Amino acid sequence: MRTSIATVSLSGSLTEKLTAASRAGFDGVEIFENDLLASPLTPEEIRARCADLGLSIDLYQPMRDIEAVPPEEFARNLRRAHHKFELMGRLGADTVLVCSSVSPLARDDDALAAAQLCQLADLAQGFGIRVAYEALAWGRHVNTYDHAWRIVEAAGHPALGTCLDSFHILARGSDPKDLEGIADIPGEKIFFLQLADAPLMAMDVLQWSRHYRCFPGQGGLDVTGLLRHVIAAGYQGPLSLEIFNDVFRQAEAGPTAIDAHRSLLVLQEAAGLAPLPAPVVPTGAAFVELVTVDAEPASALLGALGFARTARHRSKPVDLWQQGEARILVNLGPAARRHGTFLAAVGLESPDPAGAARRAEALLAPVLPRRRAPEDAPLDAVAAPDGTELFFVATVATVATVATVATNGMNRTNRAVAEVATGIANQPELPDWRADFVDVPHHDATPHGVTRIDHLALTQPWHEFDEAVLFHRGVLGLHAQECVDVADPYGLHRSRAVSNPDGSVRIALGVGAAPTDDGARAQHIALATDDVVATARAFRAAGGRLLTVPANYHDDLAAQYEFADGELETYRELGILYDRDAHGEFRHCYTDTVGRVFFELVQRDGGYRGYGARNAPVRLAAQHAVR
Amino acid sequence: MRTSIATVSLSGSLTEKLTAASRAGFDGVEIFENDLLASPLTPEEIRARCADLGLSIDLYQPMRDIEAVPPEEFARNLRRAHHKFELMGRLGADTVLVCSSVSPLARDDDALAAAQLCQLADLAQGFGIRVAYEALAWGRHVNTYDHAWRIVEAAGHPALGTCLDSFHILARGSDPKDLEGIADIPGEKIFFLQLADAPLMAMDVLQWSRHYRCFPGQGGLDVTGLLRHVIAAGYQGPLSLEIFNDVFRQAEAGPTAIDAHRSLLVLQEAAGLAPLPAPVVPTGAAFVELVTVDAEPASALLGALGFARTARHRSKPVDLWQQGEARILVNLGPAARRHGTFLAAVGLESPDPAGAARRAEALLAPVLPRRRAPEDAPLDAVAAPDGTELFFVATVATVATVATVATNGMNRTNRAVAEVATGIANQPELPDWRADFVDVPHHDATPHGVTRIDHLALTQPWHEFDEAVLFHRGVLGLHAQECVDVADPYGLHRSRAVSNPDGSVRIALGVGAAPTDDGARAQHIALATDDVVATARAFRAAGGRLLTVPANYHDDLAAQYEFADGELETYRELGILYDRDAHGEFRHCYTDTVGRVFFELVQRDGGYRGYGARNAPVRLAAQHAVR
Repeated sequence: MRTSIATVSLSGSLTEKLTAASRAGFDGVEIFENDLLASPLTPEEIRARCADLGLSIDLYQPMRDIEAVPPEEFARNLRRAHHKFELMGRLGADTVLVCSSVSPLARDDDALAAAQLCQLADLAQGFGIRVAYEALAWGRHVNTYDHAWRIVEAAGHPALGTCLDSFHILARGSDPKDLEGIADIPGEKIFFLQLADAPLMAMDVLQWSRHYRCFPGQGGLDVTGLLRHVIAAGYQGPLSLEIFNDVFRQAEAGPTAIDAHRSLLVLQEAAGLAPLPAPVVPTGAAFVELVTVDAEPASALLGALGFARTARHRSKPVDLWQQGEARILVNLGPAARRHGTFLAAVGLESPDPAGAARRAEALLAPVLPRRRAPEDAPLDAVAAPDGTELFFVATVATVATVATVATNGMNRTNRAVAEVATGIANQPELPDWRADFVDVPHHDATPHGVTRIDHLALTQPWHEFDEAVLFHRGVLGLHAQECVDVADPYGLHRSRAVSNPDGSVRIALGVGAAPTDDGARAQHIALATDDVVATARAFRAAGGRLLTVPANYHDDLAAQYEFADGELETYRELGILYDRDAHGEFRHCYTDTVGRVFFELVQRDGGYRGYGARNAPVRLAAQHAVR
Repeated sequence: MRTSIATVSLSGSLTEKLTAASRAGFDGVEIFENDLLASPLTPEEIRARCADLGLSIDLYQPMRDIEAVPPEEFARNLRRAHHKFELMGRLGADTVLVCSSVSPLARDDDALAAAQLCQLADLAQGFGIRVAYEALAWGRHVNTYDHAWRIVEAAGHPALGTCLDSFHILARGSDPKDLEGIADIPGEKIFFLQLADAPLMAMDVLQWSRHYRCFPGQGGLDVTGLLRHVIAAGYQGPLSLEIFNDVFRQAEAGPTAIDAHRSLLVLQEAAGLAPLPAPVVPTGAAFVELVTVDAEPASALLGALGFARTARHRSKPVDLWQQGEARILVNLGPAARRHGTFLAAVGLESPDPAGAARRAEALLAPVLPRRRAPEDAPLDAVAAPDGTELFFVATVATVATVATVATNGMNRTNRAVAEVATGIANQPELPDWRADFVDVPHHDATPHGVTRIDHLALTQPWHEFDEAVLFHRGVLGLHAQECVDVADPYGLHRSRAVSNPDGSVRIALGVGAAPTDDGARAQHIALATDDVVATARAFRAAGGRLLTVPANYHDDLAAQYEFADGELETYRELGILYDRDAHGEFRHCYTDTVGRVFFELVQRDGGYRGYGARNAPVRLAAQHAVR
């Protein structure tokens, strides 16, 4: 279906908004009146600019407080409408949005509302304009879609129809049954459809609407379900986003528009309207790549963690460090990247790398060159919203290993991996990232028990947190958990984890307290071990430093839980934190930070599903203390 | 009364929090458990630190989900409490906060709750500890103060009392009559009083509480009324602030603690508990001082506006520019201040400069040296939260002028000024800031009709907006209007005006969309004229440039209002904006920006009370367009 976006959803001047909408692939826009008023372009120039950009003007909005008012007030409203219809003629817009009145002058009189809207539609028709009447959730007398429709139906004017808005309909917390009436509205009388989502916040609906709307799929409203009803009614117009959001208002229009258009693509797929290449859910973390201008600190840390430097890239200064199935590339990258040491790329095991890339591209992810250098194996890769490069890969070595052990009654996770791996093994044409690396002789370092990457924690740019979640869900097919607040001593952070079904890919997306935190966005790599105490001891014995956890924290653990003799003392000694949920237990500790990156050692037992969020304030305070 | 603050109200490490609380003058603290857990200090070290800082530990908090639970759960809770009471002994804290349970295990059984709290109090008593039981507004079964008190009363244990919290009591929107029961609680059974305000937001109370609390006087709750009831009950304990606020969490602890303590001083004054030096409300703007490293652009702008350079400071490179009663100092200040041109100081006409300074000092405003240089007249001055220097002055020249015209049937505002001025004229000992300036010969420039400073608009540091409003209300005795949202193309700004009763002092305090906006905090000076068209024309004729306003804006005005022939064309030509309220009309236009500062010309007719906020988005967009 055609896609559209209200200019109020994007930041900047009207020109910036239009340009961003066009570049992101929208077919049209709603012109928000205040954006026009603030623009130095004449209506004719705006019309021409839209035409140049391939954008239709699908709606002019809003007109307010029009109907069900005393005659003298209505006369003034018609005069105002006359001006606006002339303007719309210059603009080339043929549909105007009329919101149900919030005026204290408005009467609770449907017949009067219908009669006056009929008069308005009559005037509009003379200008070739259609009037789309919408119920605001906080409208004085008309605040439900069916009420607005009854008035439109009663008016019975060909130039008068209704506009449906997912926020206004769903924000009132209607029973899903209430939506069934939508399918009874003749499709051709639904003149417009505005789509917005919002997080479930239980706040005053006007304030919720004005500040916290978000793109479909980023909140908690069932926009997909609503869309299905509207399509069932026979609606043929555009799917249009109208989002008032304090964060989007500050963010650059370009990325926001891409995030917006992506949300409509995912929505149409979910509603069965427009298929996309099927999601190819990653089945594991093949590698993580750190870029640094000085490999020494990261290498020392990896060595102490029990990693061995097993291979080197055949043409570039990139080392492969490995322990168990955890692989870390250390790239002595171009010094121009002034971030210090940072996590630049993630290799995701994929049963179908090309398919994964096709879906990513269809969902507007920037596709990266398949070969980073002419001699490299061709790899499918895209950039995540925070700039992290995501490689879709098949690790042939893993395939062999895992396929071998798969029959030995491993746990369900490993078996699932093995099944996929066997599938991959049967596709020898898959490019192997590992082929770019040449084994190097190495001390057969005693591994310290790290088995694989448990999860990554990546702090997102402040303005792009919601986009990051939708990206990881829509593009990678990961499942998102609830958002949690985490108290840092210097501000409240938020975190939302995405994962694949068996938990072999887990990414905790985080965001700091304010845009000012973007300068040093922390990233961490959590390494799984079956015995965090042994791994931590080995790390320390090898010269590694563990984050010191205050004794008060462990005293509190003693107040909460009963531990075996000596257990708590061990945790105190090693700075191990502890958590428990309905499914199991979690023990974890932290290394020093190198650049933006640090490591976590985690032992996950009995199906624990979280990430130790309740311990994060203590960890963050301890990290501040050593800075 | 003694003042206290919960450590959760301040940002940083526990040490930073304690230091800030002590420096701001608090007598004690509530130790928030998570702050203790995250601290590397042992309880004994925290106790010693508090003693060194002169802080008592008034409360340890919180214990949760204690009461009305099954026996085996309660046994676990007692075990946990035992640990915590030992900890409190080490800490030297003798009162613990117990919040009403939110646990799904809790039963709706007051007798069970009372019995278990009695057992808890018994255990506490053995440690010399008192238990203060508080109803959370979202408690599962106990969520009102009177319900909590009934349980405490039923338990009848000497070591069990209640804790009252203004947020939990007032957030439920109780009828003021519901508060009358507070006075019936024996004062000695009110073990603790926590105070917090909050903006009226109509959102889920838990979320409201966790993110949006603010200091008393900064929100919309009647904290003063509640305090009166608690005092009437005979409460003798400390007044303690417990504030969860996302902004304070990010702000520096030092200024927040001062803001916090100031709020308690204002609150005690309002509740009749502790008098302060009486407010001395300013009666006008004597001058505004711009500091710049290059006087040329500001001087050129002032010249074009019709100001004449009438005097020069006797010893410093400071020029006085004057037109009507509007006076602007241009200070070729120390180049070390790298802000470009900015508004550094405001002279406020004061009927009692020394009294105004005494009140400011009592309310923790930094008092500035009375003489900036040895040869200057001694002037009372304090710094506002944004660093603006506020001088409390008497302009003797004005006094003469205004006193003369006062009898000629001027409007009410001028008459009020004249009465005050006459008062000042009778106090010849008042230091005159003007005495530091020597008249200079000047072209008798034709003034352009500027009569006085209408208002100042000062963007505040992002973290200090609420503090700024409380400062201007509490310290200067100004009245605050409602907060308004203003859409800038790149983010949502907020603005809140403070003014004296006759509107001769008006300051619009603003705040940008995010901390990142702090770098270039705009400031503007609005100059009053009785004929904005004539003043704007004269400005332009003198070479001044007016901000260009889009034609679309004026087209919209035509749709909304009817104007006299040619009026709208004049506004189009000069970029004049228009607004109307129930009281009158407002016409205004803008100059270029010099450094951080620009000027506005305003014509206020018929008692218009606003600041043209509805036009601000158009103005902001136009200013972005010329950047």
